[in-house]
Amino acid sequence: MPSSRPYDVGLDKNEANFVALSPLSFIERSAAVYPERTAIIYGARRQTWRETYARCRRLASALAQRGIGPGDTVAVMLPNVPAMFEAHFGVPMTGAVLNTLNTRLDAEAIAFMLEHGEAKVLLTDREFAAVVEKALAMVGGAGGVGDTRRPFVIEVEDDDAPAGKHLGDVSYEAFLAQGDPAFAWQLPSDEWNAIALNYTSGTTGNPKGVVTHHRGAYLNAVANVVTWEMPRHAVYLWTLPMFHCNGWCFPWTLALQAAASVCLRKLDTAVVFDQIREHHVTHLCAAPIVYGMLINAPEAQRAGITHPINGLIAGSAPPAAIIEGCERIGIA
Amino acid sequence: MPSSRPYDVGLDKNEANFVALSPLSFIERSAAVYPERTAIIYGARRQTWRETYARCRRLASALAQRGIGPGDTVAVMLPNVPAMFEAHFGVPMTGAVLNTLNTRLDAEAIAFMLEHGEAKVLLTDREFAAVVEKALAMVGGAGGVGDTRRPFVIEVEDDDAPAGKHLGDVSYEAFLAQGDPAFAWQLPSDEWNAIALNYTSGTTGNPKGVVTHHRGAYLNAVANVVTWEMPRHAVYLWTLPMFHCNGWCFPWTLALQAAASVCLRKLDTAVVFDQIREHHVTHLCAAPIVYGMLINAPEAQRAGITHPINGLIAGSAPPAAIIEGCERIGIA
Repeated sequence: MPSSRPYDVGLDKNEANFVALSPLSFIERSAAVYPERTAIIYGARRQTWRETYARCRRLASALAQRGIGPGDTVAVMLPNVPAMFEAHFGVPMTGAVLNTLNTRLDAEAIAFMLEHGEAKVLLTDREFAAVVEKALAMVGGAGGVGDTRRPFVIEVEDDDAPAGKHLGDVSYEAFLAQGDPAFAWQLPSDEWNAIALNYTSGTTGNPKGVVTHHRGAYLNAVANVVTWEMPRHAVYLWTLPMFHCNGWCFPWTLALQAAASVCLRKLDTAVVFDQIREHHVTHLCAAPIVYGMLINAPEAQRAGITHPINGLIAGSAPPAAIIEGCERIGIA
Repeated sequence: MPSSRPYDVGLDKNEANFVALSPLSFIERSAAVYPERTAIIYGARRQTWRETYARCRRLASALAQRGIGPGDTVAVMLPNVPAMFEAHFGVPMTGAVLNTLNTRLDAEAIAFMLEHGEAKVLLTDREFAAVVEKALAMVGGAGGVGDTRRPFVIEVEDDDAPAGKHLGDVSYEAFLAQGDPAFAWQLPSDEWNAIALNYTSGTTGNPKGVVTHHRGAYLNAVANVVTWEMPRHAVYLWTLPMFHCNGWCFPWTLALQAAASVCLRKLDTAVVFDQIREHHVTHLCAAPIVYGMLINAPEAQRAGITHPINGLIAGSAPPAAIIEGCERIGIA
């Protein structure tokens, strides 16, 4: 008779064959299993999972070349453009933490977050140039440009961005070009390592940082699929900002299901319905107020949309009028 | 500027608010959210998730009253009857490990497993009385009845069981009656604790024990839903023995999706097709040989089945004839 039971194996969680739970594993798998499926749609632009994974690895590689690694913060001040999606993979692939900034905040709040989170790199967009320029000047007190506490600024160029000053030390595409598309990134050494840092809007004092770990992001991303019964290759419209709790973990959920991300610079109901019609969007998420906008949009904007759309809602409890209105316009 | 980054939170994985990944959480949730949905169908018997959860808690409570707890083994020698499903929850709710025995093995192999796994309790069925009686006599060498190494035997009574000797120290229903349906079971203190122990069939020597932990069972159960796109409230037919790797973790997957388990004592193609027709079965799993039996069954047995059935296959790579045959009879 054995002296210890066969399942007293003294499992070492740090042993070599322990694999951390991380949503980064999803993009590697989708790029391998569904390389030619569409990952990103943005205006006339189309990107497969193979291309998107390569671009994320380029981003990680270029960041690593600048010394970014575990424990560092990379902040992003971006609308729901492809680079915002890519940052959710490329940044944590280096071990660094992604800090998505709420693009509606003022320079003081942004400066506070950049300082408090100690962002070493900032990805930004011309649309927010005025706020970002002012915030950067505040970082490190009167430091401004030249202050070592000022993050390295990467400007994501976009022909659809409104006019604005060019702020970047480098453009996003030039930065990616420095990176290796076959970069050998690593899963985190510990699944409890931070993947993302998000700040509250500071309505009752200074913003407070909320940290998500790789394990939590993995489990939440999977739970989105299970709870919503979201099928593989869904077509998802980015009506929910990715800076809101990382878009409820949907960048990672979409990678898990090899779904298509229809990116959206701004919420304009005519554009939203155009995108739904053109790409046969099956899923979207939004706060109640956005559903209110869609319900109250001119009916002509919805012409020709006959397929059912799955809408996830969150925020304060949605009023009955919103729920009824959504059903009326085909979002259940 | 802060001296440490906001996400250097020094997370303590053993802190009070850490929740272990365990598939036991699925049945608690389904019993709370879908209490009146059907969990189990067996012949004329129907059991809701509320009833099933209460029975599992009774089993855990009665086992705990007998001193069963973390580190103990409970073995089961059962066909795919409701008690087999319940054991997948009631046994690990005590912290004990479930050892499902392959009902096709001989007394020598069963005796080896009972001894090696140090089973303190054995749930068995009249159908296997001859083998179990012989195996019990071998446990502890010549010990047999009266030997303290002999497990406490619970007989799962079933009117559909073939004739056989009654072996139990107590019947399953009498045992459950001793238990508390509101038993305050606990999630494991460590998600890496064992939930199940399964032995190989010992074709090349003594059987080898394979241990599954709560974390692995949780992740595999969830992966079954994601990979198979298995919807909530699916109707699942138990063509795959639960003693095979815990039915590929499907007892736990079905609890996650509040799906219905159509239990099946034995594989008879007429019964299989009757059950598919009667309960509108949507999902089943099986080894290639079982699909071969279904394909080669008289066509009349399939009469009236027009809905599509999702079949998962595993084992050695299925021959093309099996795949083609399955498609021909409506299993994809």
